Amino acid sequence: MKKLKDIGEFGLINRIAEKEKVLDKEVILGIGDDAAVIKYKKGRYLLLTTDMLIEGVHFNKKATPFQIGWKALATNISDIAAMGGIPKYALVSLGLKKEISVKFVDEIYRGIRTLAKKFKVTILGGDTVSSPKIVVNIVLSGEVEKNYLTLRKGAQIGDKIYITGALGGSILGKHLSFIPRVKEARYLVKNLHPTSMIDISDGLLSDLKRICEASEVGAKIYQKKIPLSKEAVSLENALTAGEDFELLFTVSHHPPPYPSHQGRGKQQQLTPLPSREGKAGEGEVHITQIGEVAKKEILLLDEKGKRIRLTGNGFDHFRL
Amino acid sequence: MKKLKDIGEFGLINRIAEKEKVLDKEVILGIGDDAAVIKYKKGRYLLLTTDMLIEGVHFNKKATPFQIGWKALATNISDIAAMGGIPKYALVSLGLKKEISVKFVDEIYRGIRTLAKKFKVTILGGDTVSSPKIVVNIVLSGEVEKNYLTLRKGAQIGDKIYITGALGGSILGKHLSFIPRVKEARYLVKNLHPTSMIDISDGLLSDLKRICEASEVGAKIYQKKIPLSKEAVSLENALTAGEDFELLFTVSHHPPPYPSHQGRGKQQQLTPLPSREGKAGEGEVHITQIGEVAKKEILLLDEKGKRIRLTGNGFDHFRL
Repeated sequence: MKKLKDIGEFGLINRIAEKEKVLDKEVILGIGDDAAVIKYKKGRYLLLTTDMLIEGVHFNKKATPFQIGWKALATNISDIAAMGGIPKYALVSLGLKKEISVKFVDEIYRGIRTLAKKFKVTILGGDTVSSPKIVVNIVLSGEVEKNYLTLRKGAQIGDKIYITGALGGSILGKHLSFIPRVKEARYLVKNLHPTSMIDISDGLLSDLKRICEASEVGAKIYQKKIPLSKEAVSLENALTAGEDFELLFTVSHHPPPYPSHQGRGKQQQLTPLPSREGKAGEGEVHITQIGEVAKKEILLLDEKGKRIRLTGNGFDHFRL
Repeated sequence: MKKLKDIGEFGLINRIAEKEKVLDKEVILGIGDDAAVIKYKKGRYLLLTTDMLIEGVHFNKKATPFQIGWKALATNISDIAAMGGIPKYALVSLGLKKEISVKFVDEIYRGIRTLAKKFKVTILGGDTVSSPKIVVNIVLSGEVEKNYLTLRKGAQIGDKIYITGALGGSILGKHLSFIPRVKEARYLVKNLHPTSMIDISDGLLSDLKRICEASEVGAKIYQKKIPLSKEAVSLENALTAGEDFELLFTVSHHPPPYPSHQGRGKQQQLTPLPSREGKAGEGEVHITQIGEVAKKEILLLDEKGKRIRLTGNGFDHFRL
């Protein structure tokens, strides 16, 4: 009998998605992106996303309860950012051992609240149940102006591929304390109008594959252009390790109508993102062009234009 | 150091709720009811609720995967019903063992989809992760007309207390296959305009306490009026056992302005709920008056009006 580890996480998601025929006219987008998109107020869509974190899978005993709470909300905020949206309301489900201290639970909530406050997210309730392992499930709603909604689908051949920040080594700590890229995503949708966007949760190559499949295109990625984080142990690690939570997006190759996009030519760019919406004094996050949208497959190319083959693709929950 | 089992589930929820000050003007109601209530389209509110089910806690090895899926969605639909609303969109988070068969997962989804279809709920996506125990978390949105929104708060001294159906013995099977009372709730909000409502998830006395606390009132419950299900092993069981998922609601004692409410007098009622919105041939669910809203405490009275004392109150996740 076929088991989950035989079909893998992507196999399971495709299996589920195939059977969900969305007939509701209010639904703009169901399964298959970082968040679902529903009709809402005039000029805006409602976004809905959810993420489940489990002890021993998404965090281990070394993670502080503050970090567990922070991460649980941050992964959801990252999904809303990847749609170009603004996070709004959260519901928190906690599965907890009876023997756990009240202080531990307070700290999980302090982690959630600290980040919620930073992004003006309101916590509206949830569910608390007993569980042999700690489970945190957060659902987050968001809003996005109709003209700023950015999907995985939309990349066109010739578009430039960018990422925010640098990749790799997140497992050493960043995955528990990252700042979701809402500010950056909002700057992007207002100024660069990405043709597609996703947050890197399962690894660059895995998530690029999702953009390519949704957009029915391929991609060329230039190895030497990949910005490595200080913590990245290798290029392969930076390409396939999960939980960087940077944004991966494509920008049209057509002559740019946007002032902020002019005069760049074709050379590699390290473009500063002015922190227009952020506090003064906060660091700016760079974006880097790492390749172009191409036909069919995803190719990783070395300096001489030769294809580099990798064994792994990214994190898969059921194929470890 | 204080542990969860010391403060219990209600203690934890109160602890969490106290710290959540909702400042967002769009939020009508945050923590403290069956669902959160948010401003939405003209004349309607958006409802959001979530429930987490964990293997060994909410279901055991005897439960079929179809039943697990059914129950996971049904508990959420029941929460939307308790607000007087109509369920709309669901996001499903699944925590699954790698060794689980694909067929098992398909069956969980078949359970979810079968019920979703019955209530016209659209599944919009979710998250799938590996987990040592099966975890199903569903978040469900709903809609309710502003004048039909029914909260826990609102019961007034003298109001009549009713329940739908019969209580007790749900653990023997009903908790895995119950039909959430959406049809009944919609009938109630349109015809009897309940002053308060909740679904019975943790036991009649537990959930009545929630209505009383939210409404700042007490209650008198008449033992002999409690309708027992065939499966109820005792009165105490019917009063304190969880997961009946019937509706508990209060109706104003003021002269009823509603045609459907006239001519009942003060005697105990078994009022048929016409299945106006249901299929022809479906059974009708009865509502039963079990007591009245009173001052301060909750009293359970025997036939002679003498107080009956019970040891337990209801299901508490952290005090087993």
